[in-house]
Amino acid sequence: MFFIPDSFLDEVLSEDIPYGDLTVKLLGIESRRGQVRCYPKADGVVSGIDPAARIFRRAGLEAQVLHADGDRVAKGEPVIVARGSAGAIHAVYKTAQNILEYCSGISGRTRAMVDAAQAENPRCQVALTRKHFPGTKLLSLYAGLAGGAVVHRMGLSESVLVFDQHRVFRPDFLDWLQAVKARDPERKIAVEASSPEEALSFALNGADIVQCERFTPEALQAFIGEARAKRPGLLVSAAGGVKAENAALYAKAGADFLVTTWPYFGRPFDIKMEITAV
Amino acid sequence: MFFIPDSFLDEVLSEDIPYGDLTVKLLGIESRRGQVRCYPKADGVVSGIDPAARIFRRAGLEAQVLHADGDRVAKGEPVIVARGSAGAIHAVYKTAQNILEYCSGISGRTRAMVDAAQAENPRCQVALTRKHFPGTKLLSLYAGLAGGAVVHRMGLSESVLVFDQHRVFRPDFLDWLQAVKARDPERKIAVEASSPEEALSFALNGADIVQCERFTPEALQAFIGEARAKRPGLLVSAAGGVKAENAALYAKAGADFLVTTWPYFGRPFDIKMEITAV
Amino acid sequence: MFFIPDSFLDEVLSEDIPYGDLTVKLLGIESRRGQVRCYPKADGVVSGIDPAARIFRRAGLEAQVLHADGDRVAKGEPVIVARGSAGAIHAVYKTAQNILEYCSGISGRTRAMVDAAQAENPRCQVALTRKHFPGTKLLSLYAGLAGGAVVHRMGLSESVLVFDQHRVFRPDFLDWLQAVKARDPERKIAVEASSPEEALSFALNGADIVQCERFTPEALQAFIGEARAKRPGLLVSAAGGVKAENAALYAKAGADFLVTTWPYFGRPFDIKMEITAV
Amino acid sequence: MFFIPDSFLDEVLSEDIPYGDLTVKLLGIESRRGQVRCYPKADGVVSGIDPAARIFRRAGLEAQVLHADGDRVAKGEPVIVARGSAGAIHAVYKTAQNILEYCSGISGRTRAMVDAAQAENPRCQVALTRKHFPGTKLLSLYAGLAGGAVVHRMGLSESVLVFDQHRVFRPDFLDWLQAVKARDPERKIAVEASSPEEALSFALNGADIVQCERFTPEALQAFIGEARAKRPGLLVSAAGGVKAENAALYAKAGADFLVTTWPYFGRPFDIKMEITAV
Amino acid sequence: MFFIPDSFLDEVLSEDIPYGDLTVKLLGIESRRGQVRCYPKADGVVSGIDPAARIFRRAGLEAQVLHADGDRVAKGEPVIVARGSAGAIHAVYKTAQNILEYCSGISGRTRAMVDAAQAENPRCQVALTRKHFPGTKLLSLYAGLAGGAVVHRMGLSESVLVFDQHRVFRPDFLDWLQAVKARDPERKIAVEASSPEEALSFALNGADIVQCERFTPEALQAFIGEARAKRPGLLVSAAGGVKAENAALYAKAGADFLVTTWPYFGRPFDIKMEITAV
Amino acid sequence: MFFIPDSFLDEVLSEDIPYGDLTVKLLGIESRRGQVRCYPKADGVVSGIDPAARIFRRAGLEAQVLHADGDRVAKGEPVIVARGSAGAIHAVYKTAQNILEYCSGISGRTRAMVDAAQAENPRCQVALTRKHFPGTKLLSLYAGLAGGAVVHRMGLSESVLVFDQHRVFRPDFLDWLQAVKARDPERKIAVEASSPEEALSFALNGADIVQCERFTPEALQAFIGEARAKRPGLLVSAAGGVKAENAALYAKAGADFLVTTWPYFGRPFDIKMEITAV
Repeated sequence: MFFIPDSFLDEVLSEDIPYGDLTVKLLGIESRRGQVRCYPKADGVVSGIDPAARIFRRAGLEAQVLHADGDRVAKGEPVIVARGSAGAIHAVYKTAQNILEYCSGISGRTRAMVDAAQAENPRCQVALTRKHFPGTKLLSLYAGLAGGAVVHRMGLSESVLVFDQHRVFRPDFLDWLQAVKARDPERKIAVEASSPEEALSFALNGADIVQCERFTPEALQAFIGEARAKRPGLLVSAAGGVKAENAALYAKAGADFLVTTWPYFGRPFDIKMEITAV
Repeated sequence: MFFIPDSFLDEVLSEDIPYGDLTVKLLGIESRRGQVRCYPKADGVVSGIDPAARIFRRAGLEAQVLHADGDRVAKGEPVIVARGSAGAIHAVYKTAQNILEYCSGISGRTRAMVDAAQAENPRCQVALTRKHFPGTKLLSLYAGLAGGAVVHRMGLSESVLVFDQHRVFRPDFLDWLQAVKARDPERKIAVEASSPEEALSFALNGADIVQCERFTPEALQAFIGEARAKRPGLLVSAAGGVKAENAALYAKAGADFLVTTWPYFGRPFDIKMEITAV
Repeated sequence: MFFIPDSFLDEVLSEDIPYGDLTVKLLGIESRRGQVRCYPKADGVVSGIDPAARIFRRAGLEAQVLHADGDRVAKGEPVIVARGSAGAIHAVYKTAQNILEYCSGISGRTRAMVDAAQAENPRCQVALTRKHFPGTKLLSLYAGLAGGAVVHRMGLSESVLVFDQHRVFRPDFLDWLQAVKARDPERKIAVEASSPEEALSFALNGADIVQCERFTPEALQAFIGEARAKRPGLLVSAAGGVKAENAALYAKAGADFLVTTWPYFGRPFDIKMEITAV
Repeated sequence: MFFIPDSFLDEVLSEDIPYGDLTVKLLGIESRRGQVRCYPKADGVVSGIDPAARIFRRAGLEAQVLHADGDRVAKGEPVIVARGSAGAIHAVYKTAQNILEYCSGISGRTRAMVDAAQAENPRCQVALTRKHFPGTKLLSLYAGLAGGAVVHRMGLSESVLVFDQHRVFRPDFLDWLQAVKARDPERKIAVEASSPEEALSFALNGADIVQCERFTPEALQAFIGEARAKRPGLLVSAAGGVKAENAALYAKAGADFLVTTWPYFGRPFDIKMEITAV
Repeated sequence: MFFIPDSFLDEVLSEDIPYGDLTVKLLGIESRRGQVRCYPKADGVVSGIDPAARIFRRAGLEAQVLHADGDRVAKGEPVIVARGSAGAIHAVYKTAQNILEYCSGISGRTRAMVDAAQAENPRCQVALTRKHFPGTKLLSLYAGLAGGAVVHRMGLSESVLVFDQHRVFRPDFLDWLQAVKARDPERKIAVEASSPEEALSFALNGADIVQCERFTPEALQAFIGEARAKRPGLLVSAAGGVKAENAALYAKAGADFLVTTWPYFGRPFDIKMEITAV
Repeated sequence: MFFIPDSFLDEVLSEDIPYGDLTVKLLGIESRRGQVRCYPKADGVVSGIDPAARIFRRAGLEAQVLHADGDRVAKGEPVIVARGSAGAIHAVYKTAQNILEYCSGISGRTRAMVDAAQAENPRCQVALTRKHFPGTKLLSLYAGLAGGAVVHRMGLSESVLVFDQHRVFRPDFLDWLQAVKARDPERKIAVEASSPEEALSFALNGADIVQCERFTPEALQAFIGEARAKRPGLLVSAAGGVKAENAALYAKAGADFLVTTWPYFGRPFDIKMEITAV
């Protein structure tokens, strides 16, 4: 279960309708009865369905959910149908639509990367970073998981990943690696490398995971061959510029997982909100 | 002044570092002294500078600000330089970077649209909608304004825009238009039209603004010519699929403003966070 | 729909009952069954009904709603009847009463102004300012709308109103007016004037709305006559000391709308909370 | 010390300036330098000075404080002078003014009641109830204390006050009074009476405080005489319709304290915000 | 009624499951059906039942409540039984368990003190201080009340207790006591004394309550005898190191109430969460 | 850096002093000048120093910090000295003291466990669970880290730990283990076992970590010997009833880390707040 608290839903809703709906009030249509059918304008992965449905319900609408987060839905096939007053529909449908469209966009891009990678290498995972738009961690991770990804890092507190920005303060890093591992037995120690040589030195000194930043697929494959020979069980990830277009290449090169920010941005996926009077 | 409350900055920061920085702790580099220089990796518009600088300061770093939001900055030219403990730098630099990159991405795309439009029609404005990623209204509007846009709508409470989704509940809409205007003398009444015929009927019945949805530039120009002859002072906007690539065409066609969601999504603008020990 | 989030209701409730109800506990009456009937002690406009009913429900009470916000209700006629445990009734009835009484007070005063103004000039609107008690924007605007007003300004972000306090920084203001209008085509530009001469100069230089501060009704009428002759379509509002007592005079003088803070303060409207054991 | 958290100040500020100041931006006066002098338009009690000054400072202004909360200040004598950018001044001065005006209004009315009561009976206190506008408990109590009042009740959790609404569920209340007192030795047990007979029975059965609801001053005086003869040390308060106009009468009648809601509502006290360019 | 807002429950829940349940997701058991039975592992007082049940319900589970807060429950006897999806059960059961265990621990220790004290002196109350773990005031007071205590102080705003730390700033304290009492007639004035001599001087100068800090039971008894002879009606409390083990001694010595922090810390009370597939 | 947001500090402060300090106000000592010296009453580990010092500063006091979190401090040796008005000191010192005492209690117990374990087995870590008092995650983890522990789990989202409560829904668990590992390559998969047989089956089927619940030290040692022979690199933790008293035994038995809740509860560590007038 991915728990999204009511307070989050109310907050995004209140931002859009802080002091009532001026247009509906002026038109005098508050109490008409209506229906909104939400369906994609093209075939694709849809997510955000659960929070969107709850948004409808918070305004007093009845909402029927017809698909689950992460489903691939055909163009025109409704994922939610909500019914109630025109006032309630207009108060919330755009916020629900925004959640559906941005989440589905992320889920769809994630799913494309996962499918591309796993077609070549069924064990290769797609792992999403913490580089989402500030304020969207909840929905971004939610949508990424719905698209088939795992979470690379939630933040700084729960995982260990050593960048060159850390090593400028710890030039004797290789000597520290074993100590670091002993200090935190429960977590895998990942180190980012910017060249095969660096990568190999991390592997040989005990890194659990070597994150290969901006390697070509060829360089990655070569490194993996050499490193696994010397360090069976070493995990290798590809990072930096990895996206749906090149995911297959990195997966085929033998990466255990692909670290990516790419699904977080890009076009929202168009969801039609078809409103009718009933 | 665009007021961003401390609580917002703390919230996005806490999301990334809820319970300390595990990597820094394990490496034992908390109290080393360092510096982070933030500069774009390519020429471009930078924004988010004020909140990013405040993020650095909340961790106890000294932050020097070298550019203002919305400046076009040359590749490699620093916009913020912050100094202090390695622990504080690592605690916050990624959040600061995310703010800078996502904001700058929005500002840059906005600026591109504004420049394209105003090169053809200096009075043509770019107006940003409420279709941003839920949770980012503050930063999205902030970045859009820094990029030269105006805000189309903040939400439902402060502006009047009649869609066809409203008119399904008010089939006698044309008869209501004058009454609506009288009911709210302080705001302009905008109506969205999906065809020139519809647009003309709204114009002739008193809409202050006709928002032309997915008109071709040619159709828009023709409509504006006809409508302005009959309704001098009518405001006309172009909406639906308007972006940097076609902004000039719509501006040249005579639109008073372009309504767009396009700058909200797309790639963050790369900002390098160069960390050194000092 | 005017969306009031649960968190707001819980917050005002928690402020009144942060750690339980001491009196009820000491009296040992928590689980007795009771009923509370809420009715006005005099004929008048009642509002706050929706949030008050939800307050009752948050404590587990059944609440029956018998009137809509803004209704004129006869003395003694119940607007809400709630039933359940004595503990729940005592936990929340005073907060519900406070919401009802303060909201109804604002709605009643607003309604009195609207009725007075529109009896003389049916097109004259009453517009409420942002000068409410800090912390009450949600309920103050809610109650004002329920009383028949429109919202003058929600705050600084969504409307343009130029005061003399702005013009001290822009002495060349008249030269700027046209540029300001072009920069924001979607909003009407309002300028406050403190004399008929000033008002006329704003009108002639293109202000959409001239807000006449502390004009006598006679001066207002004279100004409107002169200005409309030269600027048909100009909107004129009266501000400063406008209230129920003089609303008719300003409406009759031809004001398009009356800008007022007056309904925000004054006596709450007495609502009896009649509690009985059942 | 009355602790007002930053979050409260930011919240009321953000409500007024959620997404920047449109007027200042359009006028292009953001970076002009200015000063705002805050002074009362008439002689009177001023409060809200500390939170108002902090509001100015949160926007980056320098604020000089010239009076303390609760001071009686002469017309035209400044209480705060703030300096900085025009953008910052316009972003916050109205919120600061609202805090000053509503708080001063409450403090002034409170002070008037206290002075009236204590002129007749120097030991008579004015005690403020929990019937303030929901959302204003912090500022309402703050202002009441600054005006010389004590707090009657903050809410339900910290004090014991038995109303007839409780007694409908506890018809055998008189038999319970001693037990209630024993159950909570740290707090005084107050009981509200609506007639002298009822009041006397509560006094004789052990109430620490009898709150006399809507007694005439004469009836109150008679009751106090009789009750104190039989129950030395009994505390008696007057409640229901007590305000500045009749406070002296109730104080003279011998009330130990006056329970009142009256200072919470009424006109804000006018504070001029005189802005000049510097 | 002790009102616990939804936002509190969501907050503690979100802290534990901020971005979904990784283990359940990897195991693929989200939609299995299950049941959780919550029962104590030993006989004892149970509390936290109401918030725990609401925690279950917030995740969509059906929760049946079989005992009331403060009940003494036999080992193995269920207090809550909840049913629904395995995903929902795993998302929330640990948070529910933590609430039950920490609350029950506090309630049990409180009850032990109350029982010990009242066995000797049925009028002797146990009063809980404000020295709980910051962040737990709501649950700590809730659990203390469920265990039979009264609240000594919620904080600084609602009660008067003079410590030696105050008297260092008011060396002429004895001369002030009467004035302090007059200034706040609604509250009892408590003064903490660290010796019988000091205690007597406070008693004779008018303190309503003398809080005897770290007196032996014998010293307390002697003081009470002497003080009550001279000041009938004086209330005396024992504070400092008072706990279940010595409560009887202080109660027997004649204390009106025992002021204690002791129940706030100590072992949580073990509650088994027995999960089965259904 | 362990980031504690201002909002958290203000929240715990506001809970203790919601509407001013009644005692200080009645005593009239608000503006006296004073100093508070904070020192332990016995030798021991102190933590919470950073948030406590910030609490003092939020009230306007100058606070000098003399020790770092986690330091072992001699009885009577000050860790913070703060100076300023008596009003500010009394407003906040108790909240600061509570933070210091509860945090130091946790840090001291944690340090005792770490020292006991590492005296026998220098590589053995102490790992703190998520079973802290709800509402204290921030301070509990902060204090645990300051005492030398690592964090076992922050919650459900960032780590994988399979309990028997999961396996009731996945009876074919052993067959799933490899698939689970492949699905999340970045995290170690931990499984809790309640017997050596179970433990061995998890080890042989690929668990990265076997958490041994309530094994005797002898059983643990035997299991580790057997398992490591067959699965070099297997990590083994001891959980269930592990505390300072038996930590050495489990460490000596070869556990890689000890999973414990024990430091979270127990007595706060006494910190004297010595207040003097200056």
